[in-house]
Parts: sequence; structure tokens; C-alpha cells
Amino acid sequence: MSAPEGFENVFSGNPLDRLANERRSPDWVAAALTKPETLVLPLHKLNFPLEQRDGALRLAWTPATELELGEAPLPLLLGKRDGDVLFAADLSHLPEPPGDGYQDLRAAAPALEHQDASIAAQARAFVDWHTRHSRCSVCGAETSVHEGGNMRKCGDCDAMHFPRTDPVVITVVADDDECLLGRQASWPAGMFSALAGFIEHGESIEDAVRREVREESGILARDIRYHSSQPWPFPASLMIGCHAAPENKNIDIDDEEMDDVQWFSRAEVEESLSRGAAQITDPSRENAPLGLPGPMAIAHTLITAWARREV
Amino acid sequence: MSAPEGFENVFSGNPLDRLANERRSPDWVAAALTKPETLVLPLHKLNFPLEQRDGALRLAWTPATELELGEAPLPLLLGKRDGDVLFAADLSHLPEPPGDGYQDLRAAAPALEHQDASIAAQARAFVDWHTRHSRCSVCGAETSVHEGGNMRKCGDCDAMHFPRTDPVVITVVADDDECLLGRQASWPAGMFSALAGFIEHGESIEDAVRREVREESGILARDIRYHSSQPWPFPASLMIGCHAAPENKNIDIDDEEMDDVQWFSRAEVEESLSRGAAQITDPSRENAPLGLPGPMAIAHTLITAWARREV
Repeated sequence: MSAPEGFENVFSGNPLDRLANERRSPDWVAAALTKPETLVLPLHKLNFPLEQRDGALRLAWTPATELELGEAPLPLLLGKRDGDVLFAADLSHLPEPPGDGYQDLRAAAPALEHQDASIAAQARAFVDWHTRHSRCSVCGAETSVHEGGNMRKCGDCDAMHFPRTDPVVITVVADDDECLLGRQASWPAGMFSALAGFIEHGESIEDAVRREVREESGILARDIRYHSSQPWPFPASLMIGCHAAPENKNIDIDDEEMDDVQWFSRAEVEESLSRGAAQITDPSRENAPLGLPGPMAIAHTLITAWARREV
Repeated sequence: MSAPEGFENVFSGNPLDRLANERRSPDWVAAALTKPETLVLPLHKLNFPLEQRDGALRLAWTPATELELGEAPLPLLLGKRDGDVLFAADLSHLPEPPGDGYQDLRAAAPALEHQDASIAAQARAFVDWHTRHSRCSVCGAETSVHEGGNMRKCGDCDAMHFPRTDPVVITVVADDDECLLGRQASWPAGMFSALAGFIEHGESIEDAVRREVREESGILARDIRYHSSQPWPFPASLMIGCHAAPENKNIDIDDEEMDDVQWFSRAEVEESLSRGAAQITDPSRENAPLGLPGPMAIAHTLITAWARREV
């Protein structure tokens, strides 16, 4: 399915109206859950029910009035698409998922219809945040769900807690001939990717790019250019993809964080991209060919854009 | 002071090496606090000690060995600048701030030296986060400080909690003739700014721009272009500044969120920018001239860039 402008990364392209006003009314949210035209996406231990529909792999929704919630937490309001009001419900209290075809999002996403993948990313991050915020970080008392799940409030000190998204910078540093990629020791043999890290307090996107690249490689990044972004629901990052030019080319690796950092030629990168998913089957580290992240990752987008001279 | 590439927004340009490896060692952090060359920035109820130094308004640091911490929480490791290791300490347990010249960051930032403003932003967000995370959001038990403050860990369930930064999109939608600005009812008369909102789960930057602009104004944003970013430490946002073009021009205001949204001509915007800070003194709503955010805000950067035809 072709993606509209800016929608190219997997998990991006979220089409939902988040119902920012309606969700403030508990009565509106409660009433929505009694309507047969309201649809609920059940999750079980963060896995999703999927089905083939209209020639594509799609999320399998259940009408709100047909769902047995039992002891499940309150469903979370995702928003509205066309006329459908959509919720996610965490059914992890059940020993087995209800129905067939529950799948892990990381494994299923490449085949999932584009907008459904984005809604699944939203639901996964949302449900996961709630499972880790039943208590107040200020005072330790119990919190309860408000605004269809878009806020939790402490029953004791009234502190408000909002769902969290962690911004991450991911950067391909490159000149005309070579790009800078790194690997962690836990990755498959030969696998390299763009340098990445969480944005910390008091940093702009550009500050974080400079710091992360310098920390991991000893390279000073300049001419930093934003490319595109991607929600990454493992558990709830916002990947901010950039390109940059190197001020220097002598690599000084941070041994504690990185297993290896190298410059790769455009020919090596192009060859790896053309090999595709079959690239990382060689278990021998020394002889492993260059492996690159698959199309699900924004790193793939950034590396491909450089290889094709599109940046 | 002229700012290097990408450093233009107030609070950006953070120069610190965050000591990502060193901070993992409790011994290293404890030893650093005993060294006379280590500097501590004391905060009192999130206000900062400032001083005139070398012809500029600067943060006033105290050598670690001269600081009476008393019952203060453990100081937080900010990082390293040149040879100086820098910490922030929250002295809010004292009835009065120790020493003179404590100031509110929002008021002081426009006059503060550029990199010091960024370090102050980092310290403010960092201290504030710790004051609101003494308990575990998973189980409610007490948490303790690790990695120089870059992690809190639950003493009961071992859950790890990391400082939080909230990404926000802020967008000037404009065509060649007019730009779209909105105001909230609580703002001074005549005051308008760019449309902004938190990025939610499952959204790319571009998705969030489209949703926020549509929610607040009824305008469909296209041709979304990232401009620059800014840490905004009230309490801990990352402002992601964009420009976009309008698909339509008929405004449909969200009455619950916005007091007013209007198209303004380039001449009106230029006239307001040239009037500067004196612009919002007229208390009469009807007759108030257009007021725009001051240079501290990324909204000012975005609006100015459009007015000068730089985007």
C-alpha cells in the first residue's frame, strides 16, 4: 500500500482523531463502550489478534458489546477512525488469549497494513504504560484511570500522570564516500546500524546527536539534518532520524557501549541492502558480511536514503 | 554571544559530556563529590543562583567541598565541561536559599549566557523529575538514586525509572501571504502563538503536527518541514519546531482548547515583531495589537523565520 507524504516509516502514519475533548468526559467514554459500533482491540501480554482481510494482514477488532472484559482493566480510548470509535483492552489476566492468531508486534509489523501497524504501536505503548503506572510516583498511593486512559490520577495526593514517550536520536553520519555505523556485542554477527541514544534533559535534537555520536565513536557531527521520524513501541520511543557530516574521521570507540564502529563505503552498503534479509545468517563473526537493519527500522530508511544519494 | 550552528534557540546548545560510563560507578560519583575542583549548582525551589561574571550573567557554582548539603537529597551529576565535573543539588529543604541572587529561570533565561541557560534547563528538569519520583510507579515502594541521578530503582520490585522528556510539536502553518496563529483564553490580550501539543503514543512528528493543527484550527497541514528544536524545562519538554503549508484556509476553532485562531498577514507579523516586548501592555482585548512570544520561545524563531522568508 503506497504511503502518503511523510508516512513512509513503519508505525508512522497514525490516522486517528484522538478525541481530545470527548475523552475528558467520563460519561462520554462509558457510553461509547456500550455501543455496538464501538470496536475494541484486545491485547494479551502485548500480543495482538490479526487476520487476513481484503487481501491484507489487519488488526482483528471485536465489537465493544461482544467483548467479555471480566477482570480486565478499563479499556483505553485510542480515538476515532472514520466513524469508528476504537479502544484497546488488556486481557492479560486470562490464562490464554481469547481467539486465534495473537502475534508479537515486532514480528508481525512488516506484513501488517500500514495504518494498522501505527494503531498497534499506539495500543502497545498505551497498554504497557498503564501496566507500569498503577501507583503514584510522588507518594506511592494507588492511581486510577481518567480521560479514557490519557491520564492517571493519584487517589491520595491528586498528582496527575500522563502517558510517556521517550525521544531518541538516530543518526547516519556520512560524507560522500563513507557512512559511520556501529554495532553492540549482543547483535548477530556482521550486523551494524546507525548510532542512537535517548535525548537527555536540557538537550535539543542537535545537541543529542552531537553528544551521542561523539560518545559512541569519537566523531564530531556537524551539518545535522532531520530526515523523518518513527514511533517505536518497544516500549514507547519516538525515533528522530537525522543525517550529519563528520568533522573528523578517526574513530575512537566507547568500549563499554559499542562492540565496534566502522566507516563503510557506499558500495559495501549498497551490496548489503541488495542482499536484504538473508544477510545475517553467517554465524562467524570474522567472515560475516555487513548486515543492516530491515525495512521496519528507521535506520534502514536513513541508510538507504544516503546510499541512494537522496540526502 | 554568537551561537554555533544549530545552537540558536534559548536552552539549546548544551555542551556537557554526560559521563555516560563514569556515572554507572557509584564509587566514581561519590569520589567526584569530594574533589575541590568539582562544582555544584545549588537550586532552591527550582530557582538558581546567578552572578555577573566576565561581562555576562552566569550560573553561580559552589565548589563541592564548600557546600553544606545537610539533609539535601544526593546531588545529581550533570556532566563535564572542559575539566569541570558539574552537579546540581536541591537545597529546597532550607527555609531560605543559601546566598544571594536566586532567580526564576523563565524570567532570567533571556539574559543568561547561552550555554549556562542550557545547563540551567538541564538542572531544572532533572531536579524537578527527582522531586516527583521518590516512589515506584509499579508497586509504590521507595526508590533510590543510581547513576548520579540518571536512574531511580525500586527497593522492592527492582523496577528501573529513568528521567523523562516529553516531545512536543509546535508548528507555524503558512502560505506565502499569511500564517496561522492561535491563542488560549488565559493569555494576555492580543497575544497569539504557533499551534502546539504533546506527541502521543503511536505518532511520528508529522502525524502529531497534522493532528494538533487539525484539532485546534480545522486546517489540514501538508508539506511539513522540521526547523529546529529546543529543550523547554517547564517541567521537561522537547519542543520540536516545524513549518507546514495549509491544505485549506477555512478555520474551524476547537472552542474548548483555543480562545481564537486567525490568519495573520506578513505585514501584521512584521509590525508586531518590530514592536517587540512592548506589544502586550494594552489590557483591552478588542483593541490589543498582535502580541507574539519573545525571543526565548521557539515560537518566536519559527514565526520570525517565516516573516523573513527564510523557510
